[in-house]
Formats: sequence, structure tokens, C-alpha cells
Amino acid sequence: MDWTQTIGYLAAAATTIAFIPQAWQTIKTRDTKGISLGMYLVFTFGVLMWLTYGILIKDIPVISANTITLILSVIILVYKLKYK
Amino acid sequence: MDWTQTIGYLAAAATTIAFIPQAWQTIKTRDTKGISLGMYLVFTFGVLMWLTYGILIKDIPVISANTITLILSVIILVYKLKYK
Repeated sequence: MDWTQTIGYLAAAATTIAFIPQAWQTIKTRDTKGISLGMYLVFTFGVLMWLTYGILIKDIPVISANTITLILSVIILVYKLKYK
Repeated sequence: MDWTQTIGYLAAAATTIAFIPQAWQTIKTRDTKGISLGMYLVFTFGVLMWLTYGILIKDIPVISANTITLILSVIILVYKLKYK
């Protein structure tokens, strides 16, 4: 694996796991006032499109990263809708 | 352009522009309590890695999408650090 590939995997891992502390904080505090509903509506739709794209091009990294992000994004969106 | 490509572009556009309403809300309200610092630290690093990756593989869509996301992510991160 060369440097370019390593940076690509690092990028994918970071932008995926970044949503873990947000989901955790939101579940724990139920404080969703500062979180934008618009962001999570558009973002969840976008991740669902990424997942569809991954399935269509049969790309395992795209499918796995976006499955994790979709779960986290949906959790944050549900809390935003429930505790606004 | 086939359906698969259209879905890919739609996905990239949605996950990029999703951060516009969040940045706008954060700038307007300065309410960053519900926003996770951990998320924006890891996410900003990840987007910077995506941008580096885009430059290395000379991919214009990856470069442009991540330049926009980086600007929005940095704005949210700066507000989180300033108004916590």
C-alpha cells in the first residue's frame, strides 16, 4: 500500500468515525439545540445516496464506511426530531 | 451520464452542502453546546486528508467538494472553540 492509498483510507476512516462522538454526546445529553436539522436531513440523504452508489459500483470500502455513517447520522437525526 | 454516475454526484453534492445550514445556524446563534468538539476535530482532519488525497490523485471533484467542506467544517470548529 503506497502513501496515497494510506491517506485515502485515513481520510475515509476519520470522516466516518467523526460522527461517533457526536452521536454519543447527543444520546447522552439530548441537547440538540445547536445541531442543524437541515444539515442532518440533507446529510442523511447524501449518505444514503453514497451507500446506493457503493452498492451499484460494488465497492466494499464505500459500502462499509457509508453504512456506519448512515447509522450514526440517523441516530442524530432521530434525536434532533425527538428532542427539539 | 448514466444513473450510477448521477447518484454519485448527487451523493457528493448532498454530503458537501449539508454543512451549509449547520455553519449558518452556528454563525447566527453561536449556540455550540450540542455540537461535539471531538466530531469537528476528527472530521476537519479527515476532510483535510480527503483534500490531500484528491490533490495526490489529481481528481477535480474530490478536490472541489472537500475544499468547500473544509471551509465549512473549519468555521464550525472555530465557533465551537470560541463559544464553548
